[in-house]
Amino acid sequence: MNKNSPRAVILLSGGLDSATLMAIARRDGCRCYAISFDYGQRHRCELDAAAVVAEHNGAVEHKVISLNLDSIGGSALTDINLDVPESPGSGIPITYVPARNTVFLSIALGWAEVLDAERIYIGVNAVDYSGYPDCRPEYVAAFQTLANLATRQGVEGQPISIEAPLQLMSKAEIVTLGKELKVDYSLTISCYNPAPGGEACRVCDACRLRAQGFIEAGFADPTRYQREM
Amino acid sequence: MNKNSPRAVILLSGGLDSATLMAIARRDGCRCYAISFDYGQRHRCELDAAAVVAEHNGAVEHKVISLNLDSIGGSALTDINLDVPESPGSGIPITYVPARNTVFLSIALGWAEVLDAERIYIGVNAVDYSGYPDCRPEYVAAFQTLANLATRQGVEGQPISIEAPLQLMSKAEIVTLGKELKVDYSLTISCYNPAPGGEACRVCDACRLRAQGFIEAGFADPTRYQREM
Repeated sequence: MNKNSPRAVILLSGGLDSATLMAIARRDGCRCYAISFDYGQRHRCELDAAAVVAEHNGAVEHKVISLNLDSIGGSALTDINLDVPESPGSGIPITYVPARNTVFLSIALGWAEVLDAERIYIGVNAVDYSGYPDCRPEYVAAFQTLANLATRQGVEGQPISIEAPLQLMSKAEIVTLGKELKVDYSLTISCYNPAPGGEACRVCDACRLRAQGFIEAGFADPTRYQREM
Repeated sequence: MNKNSPRAVILLSGGLDSATLMAIARRDGCRCYAISFDYGQRHRCELDAAAVVAEHNGAVEHKVISLNLDSIGGSALTDINLDVPESPGSGIPITYVPARNTVFLSIALGWAEVLDAERIYIGVNAVDYSGYPDCRPEYVAAFQTLANLATRQGVEGQPISIEAPLQLMSKAEIVTLGKELKVDYSLTISCYNPAPGGEACRVCDACRLRAQGFIEAGFADPTRYQREM
């Protein structure tokens, strides 16, 4: 990695997907600028995980942006009066945070513009996902079109590329690739409703998808749980 | 206005354009939910103006979202170490805040999703503008495409409409329409670099465009200035 390596802004939540994402950006030879969001989420301990993952992966910088998305409400992740479901439902779930990926990508776009970064990496996934509209490939493609029009770089003919390498991978494929890239998954937190010490609940959608991924990939799951099976 | 009136989220900065915008939304029969942003801008007194304009126009609610865009830097509006220019330059000016409209529209989109609002009004203007890429009609069209894919409403076939009625109007046309709609421009602040009491500098791009608009429209300008001509 040197001064000519491409700069990349990495959307880093501190979970399994984004830790793998950052390892991919490193494999791709990028200088990584990690960005996380303190948006009123109940699982704020993921921010501690994000800081550790960023440092572990040699981030040039790790920025945490604060914004009170909880004040617009509408999600069990930001409203403590709404329970995180313990079993999957149908349709768009209550854990969906309205426009979250659009907000996060927009702020990442602003930082990429200031850094003169060539790429933004986002860990959205359309396979083992939770039915969120803003995780689909057509959504990512539409954001790329917007980014081309919205930025100084786009106007000057050097648009910032939106990279979503996990988009079409299963959770098991993500774990398998992460293991190849030496991701330390014990540093990550995926749970939507963890205990204050970061122990996962085992029953929310995010816990279920993660556990299933480790089982299918054939690796031991280093997640710390609040309760036994 | 009744319970069946469409709900609209209004991006309200407290300036001339957005005050006119809100009057248009009211004329269109909307119940208005105003949203403003405390993003580290040096002209934060515009937030006081936004609160007054929202109340004056009968907003159902006025929400202020805080986010530290100044931490990504790159603009004279959020970095006190960069001077606001006193004369127009060429190209994209230093007062451009990277990805600002994308960030603001994204958060408005999230609130519109929660409110089940039919519309978002944004006061971008591509005529008497300052050369910002995210004020162009093709940018607004791309955000509409993104919004259709990003939201619950879009998935369910009832997309949220992005309304940019000032887009192709000159500043003089905006002032003329606002006067017809009884906008009280003495409540608004447009200046990028006002005194602590809200008096405008008279020399920044925003002041120049505003003053020219009043002259061309043939109305007295109620702006309070820091200095005489």
